[in-house]
Amino acid sequence: MSSSNPLRDASDRRLPRIAGPSGLVIFGVTGDLSRKKLMPAVYDLANRGLLPPGFSLVGFARRDWEDQDFCQVVHDAVKENARTPFREEVWQQLSQGFRFVPGTFDDDEAFRKLKSTINELDKARGTGGNFAFYLSVPPKFFPTVVRQLKEHGLSEGEGDSWRRAVIEKPFGHDLKSAQELNSVIHQVFRPADVFRIDHYLGKETVQNILALRFANTMFEPIWNRSYVDHVQITMAEDIGIGGRAGYYDGIGAARDVIQNHLLQLLALTAMEEPSSFDAKALVTEKLKVLKAVQLPGDLGRHTVRGQYTHGWQGGEEVLGYCEEEGISSDSRTDTYAAIKLSVDNRRWAGVPFYLRTGKRLGRRVTEIAVVFQRAPYSPFDTTDTQELGQNALVVRVQPDEGVTIRFGSKVPGTSMEIRDVTMDFAYGESFTTSSPEAYERLLLDVLLGDANLFPRHQEVEESWRILDPVEEYWDTHGKPEEYTAGTWGPRAADEMLARDGRSWRRP
Amino acid sequence: MSSSNPLRDASDRRLPRIAGPSGLVIFGVTGDLSRKKLMPAVYDLANRGLLPPGFSLVGFARRDWEDQDFCQVVHDAVKENARTPFREEVWQQLSQGFRFVPGTFDDDEAFRKLKSTINELDKARGTGGNFAFYLSVPPKFFPTVVRQLKEHGLSEGEGDSWRRAVIEKPFGHDLKSAQELNSVIHQVFRPADVFRIDHYLGKETVQNILALRFANTMFEPIWNRSYVDHVQITMAEDIGIGGRAGYYDGIGAARDVIQNHLLQLLALTAMEEPSSFDAKALVTEKLKVLKAVQLPGDLGRHTVRGQYTHGWQGGEEVLGYCEEEGISSDSRTDTYAAIKLSVDNRRWAGVPFYLRTGKRLGRRVTEIAVVFQRAPYSPFDTTDTQELGQNALVVRVQPDEGVTIRFGSKVPGTSMEIRDVTMDFAYGESFTTSSPEAYERLLLDVLLGDANLFPRHQEVEESWRILDPVEEYWDTHGKPEEYTAGTWGPRAADEMLARDGRSWRRP
Repeated sequence: MSSSNPLRDASDRRLPRIAGPSGLVIFGVTGDLSRKKLMPAVYDLANRGLLPPGFSLVGFARRDWEDQDFCQVVHDAVKENARTPFREEVWQQLSQGFRFVPGTFDDDEAFRKLKSTINELDKARGTGGNFAFYLSVPPKFFPTVVRQLKEHGLSEGEGDSWRRAVIEKPFGHDLKSAQELNSVIHQVFRPADVFRIDHYLGKETVQNILALRFANTMFEPIWNRSYVDHVQITMAEDIGIGGRAGYYDGIGAARDVIQNHLLQLLALTAMEEPSSFDAKALVTEKLKVLKAVQLPGDLGRHTVRGQYTHGWQGGEEVLGYCEEEGISSDSRTDTYAAIKLSVDNRRWAGVPFYLRTGKRLGRRVTEIAVVFQRAPYSPFDTTDTQELGQNALVVRVQPDEGVTIRFGSKVPGTSMEIRDVTMDFAYGESFTTSSPEAYERLLLDVLLGDANLFPRHQEVEESWRILDPVEEYWDTHGKPEEYTAGTWGPRAADEMLARDGRSWRRP
Repeated sequence: MSSSNPLRDASDRRLPRIAGPSGLVIFGVTGDLSRKKLMPAVYDLANRGLLPPGFSLVGFARRDWEDQDFCQVVHDAVKENARTPFREEVWQQLSQGFRFVPGTFDDDEAFRKLKSTINELDKARGTGGNFAFYLSVPPKFFPTVVRQLKEHGLSEGEGDSWRRAVIEKPFGHDLKSAQELNSVIHQVFRPADVFRIDHYLGKETVQNILALRFANTMFEPIWNRSYVDHVQITMAEDIGIGGRAGYYDGIGAARDVIQNHLLQLLALTAMEEPSSFDAKALVTEKLKVLKAVQLPGDLGRHTVRGQYTHGWQGGEEVLGYCEEEGISSDSRTDTYAAIKLSVDNRRWAGVPFYLRTGKRLGRRVTEIAVVFQRAPYSPFDTTDTQELGQNALVVRVQPDEGVTIRFGSKVPGTSMEIRDVTMDFAYGESFTTSSPEAYERLLLDVLLGDANLFPRHQEVEESWRILDPVEEYWDTHGKPEEYTAGTWGPRAADEMLARDGRSWRRP
């Protein structure tokens, strides 16, 4: 593809990470994720010149569709959800590689059809036998699909060609189920060929944590127990469960968010410097830090779960969790979870990491706040500094991606009064190129075989090792504390930090 | 005065630093400084409620004026140059304390009149015998004025009342003359009663250096030779010498700016934490660091002086220094000076401090840039980081007062490219109260007897100790290198840093 493509961003110019001959098969192609994220991401990548000219997309689902029906569905999805402008010539080139295979997951005939489709594409489009299988389906179907792929000889390419599996969370619901799931998948695909999507890791600011820490001199010297008081990692949503009742109920906030997103953010924040920026070195360091993560002894005092009741949000009255469609009125599912963790190593011993997430909270925000200790001594009068908080470095993951530093500055005037101020770096203002969607980045990485941003099975299992005791404790001790929708969670969460002499940020 | 005065800023509310009964005598009251800075500052302080109700102002100069003439002059100066709005009731109250004493400095009669005026004010206005004498006169008159003050019994108050002397730079033109000057003054006033005005030290951001360093945790750990590569302190002016030919020629940039402003900025940047924020503790630390400052061995390689030639600035053609009115065509006065210094102590050994100042440079800017070492190791590809500079923390003294941090951040896109970005804290945006003028702060400090922001005679002498060898070297080695007005100084200055593998910031 042309290297003068105006949609290629600066980084592409320098390092043209363009996928080689390949195709993508999506199982469950009629789902929401597929239409809202995957199809638009495929188009955007093509539009940016990052896909090979013969790139092909195969949809697999239980629909009575022909190729052209599928083509129309993708067309509508792209028109509605793509990030980059629609260009007819890109569309024409791309859509010639669209195929649809109708069938259920246990339908051998459909898988034979899939195999012949792939062979046909190899010939017609030059996909070279390289295919990624995206399992956009509930986990209970994983065993069936991967077994079928194996039985029909689709899970391994011939010669140098590759086959990869892409799976979405949940990666199990506890350590045992995660191990079983991984075992099923690894019977068919080698661990290095399994890509677990955590779309949070595809976000620019998440990757920027590594740049911030390791491409700079200023931050790493103070990034340890000598200077850090504690770390707060927050993912707050203002929405409720929407149409996800079937998935969410019985799972809850801790399994849905802490086990994957927040523990991954913790790992990137706390890990040691990797020897290089490749997947293996990164996993090694992330795994090391996850292994060092420990729960506190008294889970009753250092974990909190909550469930939202009806309230007001954005000027609108909203339902309580137990009033939502599909949720039983006595559900004990947590829609809010907060956990205190320690990282027992030389760098972090004694520094608590507070993780929290919840639905129907005050505002949609995801951030990592590294809160520093107070200055050990102040030459200024205490009256001059009484409003002074602690220094903090905040990585804003969403929205308004960027970095904020909070520090004390002199108040203009004739005395030496000092008050907290902030300095900001905003991604949007500093770079003219807009950030690619996380799925663009991640899909391209799958096609390139770049596993940097995908949690490995050991990380997934380590995260369940951390969370399992909390879930077990909660199962046997009472129920979630109610909190009014639109507030910042149950009172117990504030009390949990207050007992440590700290408080949650109000982002 | 009312504590609900809307012009009192936040800091005043907390710590009402209001001057007690007192008055100010200005020698040389008809000068520029007096009309542009001192008179407006007196009014602004009164308007902010920081002066006592009976505050009085006595002008002394060789003019045939009555009190009401003087009053009119102050009125015009205030109307033209005051920072705060004109309020009739404040003016009425203040101006009743205005007196004028006509005379020359050797006129005994005038000093007798000054004495009786002060006595009259003590009775009529309740100034309590507390007076500051502001010597807004050329240094050659200092001996005469202070001798007269002593001979007429004005230099010492009765009982608890105080008398203070305020002097403006130049504080000598080398170590010997500075010692002589200090000796003359100290024969009359105790060192603690002599206030040397360096208006740069009255600026908010200069004071903020101390807040930044010592009220925070984040910066001090990296504020040393382990992390700092070098420090650049710049005071660039875009103007030429204006009407100051008589003062400036033969003095030059190094004596005019480096000896006082820049070495004071260096002292605040490099000093250890004082045990408290009072004048004595501050002077102790500033003096300690100035004593540790050393010149490099080879002055020919590590100092540069320049002189501007005619050129273009802001779209206007401007004269070269030797073409300015009052300057001889073969003047060898430096209008640009750059010096490399070391601070030989445990914290700074091996970290060069580069000081530069000049007239007719590209832009008016004063800043302190602490430039950090490169990260010792980068896990990222070198191609990804090749545009990366060094981390820097920049205190912007003027204009756009604030703090900037430069650091590397990931460029949005699908590869791990890292580029320099900045985060800013702007004084003007963060605080609604506007910054008081430096002279407001400094005059109030004089009346309060707060000597924090005034260099002591030992500091002045120590600064000359540093600069003298440079001036002597220059006197005997060639002449200043020419640079075109509107550029960033002579080429030799760039070469001086290039030899160290560094470059000047283009602020």
